[in-house]
Amino acid sequence: MAEKDRPARPVILGQNQYGKAESRVVRITREGATHHIKDLNVSVALSGDMDEVHYSGSNANVLPTDTTKNTVYAFAKEHGIDSAEQFGILLARHFVTSQEPIETARVRIEEYAWDRIETPGAPSASAGADRPRHSFVRTGQETRVTQITYDGASWEVISGLTDLTVLNSTNSEFWGYVKDKYTTLPEAHDRILATEVTARWRFGWSDDEQPVPAWDESYEQVRTHLLRAFAETYSLSLQQTLYQMGTRILDHRDEIDEIRFSLPNKHHFLVDLEPFGLKNENEVYFAADRPYGLIEATVLRDGHEPRIPVDLTNL
Amino acid sequence: MAEKDRPARPVILGQNQYGKAESRVVRITREGATHHIKDLNVSVALSGDMDEVHYSGSNANVLPTDTTKNTVYAFAKEHGIDSAEQFGILLARHFVTSQEPIETARVRIEEYAWDRIETPGAPSASAGADRPRHSFVRTGQETRVTQITYDGASWEVISGLTDLTVLNSTNSEFWGYVKDKYTTLPEAHDRILATEVTARWRFGWSDDEQPVPAWDESYEQVRTHLLRAFAETYSLSLQQTLYQMGTRILDHRDEIDEIRFSLPNKHHFLVDLEPFGLKNENEVYFAADRPYGLIEATVLRDGHEPRIPVDLTNL
Amino acid sequence: MAEKDRPARPVILGQNQYGKAESRVVRITREGATHHIKDLNVSVALSGDMDEVHYSGSNANVLPTDTTKNTVYAFAKEHGIDSAEQFGILLARHFVTSQEPIETARVRIEEYAWDRIETPGAPSASAGADRPRHSFVRTGQETRVTQITYDGASWEVISGLTDLTVLNSTNSEFWGYVKDKYTTLPEAHDRILATEVTARWRFGWSDDEQPVPAWDESYEQVRTHLLRAFAETYSLSLQQTLYQMGTRILDHRDEIDEIRFSLPNKHHFLVDLEPFGLKNENEVYFAADRPYGLIEATVLRDGHEPRIPVDLTNL
Amino acid sequence: MAEKDRPARPVILGQNQYGKAESRVVRITREGATHHIKDLNVSVALSGDMDEVHYSGSNANVLPTDTTKNTVYAFAKEHGIDSAEQFGILLARHFVTSQEPIETARVRIEEYAWDRIETPGAPSASAGADRPRHSFVRTGQETRVTQITYDGASWEVISGLTDLTVLNSTNSEFWGYVKDKYTTLPEAHDRILATEVTARWRFGWSDDEQPVPAWDESYEQVRTHLLRAFAETYSLSLQQTLYQMGTRILDHRDEIDEIRFSLPNKHHFLVDLEPFGLKNENEVYFAADRPYGLIEATVLRDGHEPRIPVDLTNL
Repeated sequence: MAEKDRPARPVILGQNQYGKAESRVVRITREGATHHIKDLNVSVALSGDMDEVHYSGSNANVLPTDTTKNTVYAFAKEHGIDSAEQFGILLARHFVTSQEPIETARVRIEEYAWDRIETPGAPSASAGADRPRHSFVRTGQETRVTQITYDGASWEVISGLTDLTVLNSTNSEFWGYVKDKYTTLPEAHDRILATEVTARWRFGWSDDEQPVPAWDESYEQVRTHLLRAFAETYSLSLQQTLYQMGTRILDHRDEIDEIRFSLPNKHHFLVDLEPFGLKNENEVYFAADRPYGLIEATVLRDGHEPRIPVDLTNL
Repeated sequence: MAEKDRPARPVILGQNQYGKAESRVVRITREGATHHIKDLNVSVALSGDMDEVHYSGSNANVLPTDTTKNTVYAFAKEHGIDSAEQFGILLARHFVTSQEPIETARVRIEEYAWDRIETPGAPSASAGADRPRHSFVRTGQETRVTQITYDGASWEVISGLTDLTVLNSTNSEFWGYVKDKYTTLPEAHDRILATEVTARWRFGWSDDEQPVPAWDESYEQVRTHLLRAFAETYSLSLQQTLYQMGTRILDHRDEIDEIRFSLPNKHHFLVDLEPFGLKNENEVYFAADRPYGLIEATVLRDGHEPRIPVDLTNL
Repeated sequence: MAEKDRPARPVILGQNQYGKAESRVVRITREGATHHIKDLNVSVALSGDMDEVHYSGSNANVLPTDTTKNTVYAFAKEHGIDSAEQFGILLARHFVTSQEPIETARVRIEEYAWDRIETPGAPSASAGADRPRHSFVRTGQETRVTQITYDGASWEVISGLTDLTVLNSTNSEFWGYVKDKYTTLPEAHDRILATEVTARWRFGWSDDEQPVPAWDESYEQVRTHLLRAFAETYSLSLQQTLYQMGTRILDHRDEIDEIRFSLPNKHHFLVDLEPFGLKNENEVYFAADRPYGLIEATVLRDGHEPRIPVDLTNL
Repeated sequence: MAEKDRPARPVILGQNQYGKAESRVVRITREGATHHIKDLNVSVALSGDMDEVHYSGSNANVLPTDTTKNTVYAFAKEHGIDSAEQFGILLARHFVTSQEPIETARVRIEEYAWDRIETPGAPSASAGADRPRHSFVRTGQETRVTQITYDGASWEVISGLTDLTVLNSTNSEFWGYVKDKYTTLPEAHDRILATEVTARWRFGWSDDEQPVPAWDESYEQVRTHLLRAFAETYSLSLQQTLYQMGTRILDHRDEIDEIRFSLPNKHHFLVDLEPFGLKNENEVYFAADRPYGLIEATVLRDGHEPRIPVDLTNL
């Protein structure tokens, strides 16, 4: 049967969403001579009664992505930006409640952090009252992220961070593993353990009736526990370190029910210096790019259903 | 109640996997003076009975990621690389069947394509029989990708492509959309439509008893149908173009049951030249970076369950 | 002597320039149903009598960078874009001749190439006369670049390409090198030679009285000679291959006086498969990222002064 | 005259260099339980009597790039890494003095900074004597760089930084500029000024007889003066801010004779909120990616010859 005679089997439309990605909004708030800055990258994805725009191209149910962008900027003015989470909640609620065809809104936000530039400057009459404070330097460590999803009834907030690079120069071992015919790796009893943490944690908060978490405090605390668990764990495997980080956060932060990590094992290979008559006593390492081990896992409270997807990137 | 006195609620381990990501393998096959090249980036993720390595750090069930890397290289020698899909199937089967604790293997492969460098060179006695053909130039368009998942019983193969940038300089409109108080976008009756296609399609093949698809031919055909549907669709929305691409592929390629697209709307704004006394008759555009519209949808055969995740990146 | 008491030694302003970088302009030309596309990234740098804007912040001599951007778009309409070089010449001449304080203009352009999407489509009455041809797919190989500099009297045109990745799977050796106490590399008599060519070539054309080169033909021919020289050279060192590419281009293209290459030696290491009982007969390679060798050199006509800077990136 | 009959004009070899780029070396120094880390990316470029390797492929004068890489690692063990500058000086001296054909060595180093992870941990008997301190988090702001060049007689050290992003939310204006027929930009009397500083400064030190600068202290001081000058300048143009940064550094740091900046003007456009009935009082901005202004200049001591190249990237 020739291709053109073949009866097509019916085809349907599955999950679909649309929106404006990566609207970059900077919000300055002035408190006298002291300015505050919020610097966000906001991506909105909307879904609902959108079959027709796929079938016939009718945009009758489509709020343009340009409008979602405008809304981000207008809301930054009207409501300010208290935290990425709070701002995302405002936006998600707006789209779902104001547009009949839109059933679900998902707002993803990256937040870029800034530190103040400290300037001794000229002494001021009163205690710095009028000293201008409007200068900032971008903090370079991790990027804070959040994803808010709202379907008109319940909320899902997954926050996290990306690219927090950490390293232990000792207290890491790797031995006792399976050996098959393709195994050549020597066991290690003192190695560098380094990773670039990507993590996402889901809040228990899901209902407007519940008290809203203190988003910024929560972020700072999770980050601190994560770093300390990394530093304080004597590690026999990167999986063990991951699990320690996860349990420590869940033990200390009641507002969080689930956390997932994606941890590249950034290999630091001990350089063989013997050809040069030198002994490398865990001093000189080659930091490799690729390939890298990749360790991923979810840690969650017993009785809770996992909802963070397996693949974290872009979340 | 002080933090340290709070009874910890029980915490459990959820989905977890590990493996070696981004092993870069180049395989040369020599057929006399004619060489063939396969250039892959292989990432392996294994899961199964791995609780203990998280709890205590015991690696007794852990095949090192270094071994998975070695296996990639050894298999490239032992079995050659016929296609990314076939190579991924060999690897996934190996890990699941050879290691008791491993229950599921997922192999992701990016393939970088190379063209031959054509050289007129010196005339050869017979018709080019001995003319050396060992020179290649990297093809720069899209990257072909595949993901093979095997749980010891059934297969899931999702192939696709990333970063195929296409543009129609006419036959695209956008009007008739919802207008709310934040809408300022003027309607467009002749615009540029440009996108950078990310697509993933799932094969129906899932069982060793079924005939294996012709992977390379399938890829070439899907790509061709995708490009033609993009070119031939008179578009009233990017969603409509997406749906046309999806249905055309499913109509023509029986081996595929589901396809998902992630299509950034790469905005090309008509530049206002009136301040300079010039009329811009759809001639001069500003190609913007951010923000961009993002249109995502799954198209699938009726009666089939969608299995491609919503977020395509990294897949 | 306290810091504040130290007499400051006089400080002066050295070379300075300013302008708008990376204006992305897409120009569509319609020839009936057949469209043509030019896709450029244009960066303008202006210099001249600009001391005061540095000293006092007076902008009296400063044409805003926003204006240089507008000029790029207006010129795309008024003059069209014949080639990157020709467009850059128009722009550079404009800035130097129209603004008294501007003495020198340097225009850098990246050009992104597009292929047509071929669609068999419906047969047309006459031979394709009305068949729409407005669909394009971005060509992914190298990026073509050019830099035009004009000081009101003479021209300097340096064109080139970036990221043309090539590979020979044989006909490359490396041996007979210096060995010191830090040398461990074994000699190689059959290796992969791969590089990502960055090249810049300077045209002899410098005066409006001289005939203007055929820019597009020149580019195509240089690229072809470069690829063929790479493919046809039996290489004992990447330097030798570089020199062959350079001399071949200068031998065949009279319009070019000088060419510089920056060639990363993209190492492909033969994987040791002996631990697995396999013999690797130049079949399986690990493509490494970092570190890489880096080979750079200028080849030029005797009697000509080299003018292409040592560091090519950004040029 | 046909191409093949054309007598080739003589072609010569110009400036050439080779070496290993981007050797990633991590050096751990243990002081009891307190570890110190140095994390560098080292690129070596060598030049000298290297004509023959280009002409015939003879490697008789070529120290393999693999050996230069080995030397980096061996020196990290033998000499430690006091600062990037000191380490680069050791390497450059070694290559020039130990290899007859090598006349000049240029060593470029990027240094990645790490902070300690602070852990309260258990209190220790004595004042923290045995508390482990081997955990680090990568500092994310700028990357510190240096370039050391040695020709066997004199030294040139150019240090600097890349990607230090700073922003003033007020005290910046832009008006009084030239207006031509392509000018549409409105004047601004209160705008955001933001840039991503790339800077390179050249030390006066050039001779082994002179006292060596305190490299680390110098870096910290230059960075501090740069930030303060940025924060304290009431800016009428980015050029003015640049010049203030340069003069302040030269006024305070005697060891430096010349400094060059490349400052992208990262535009933050005030969003027009009037269509939504809102007034934007310098509160809500769109942070644009491309195009951007680019301001570049050298500031140097009177009587000194500028030696930092116009194009900073990669330096």
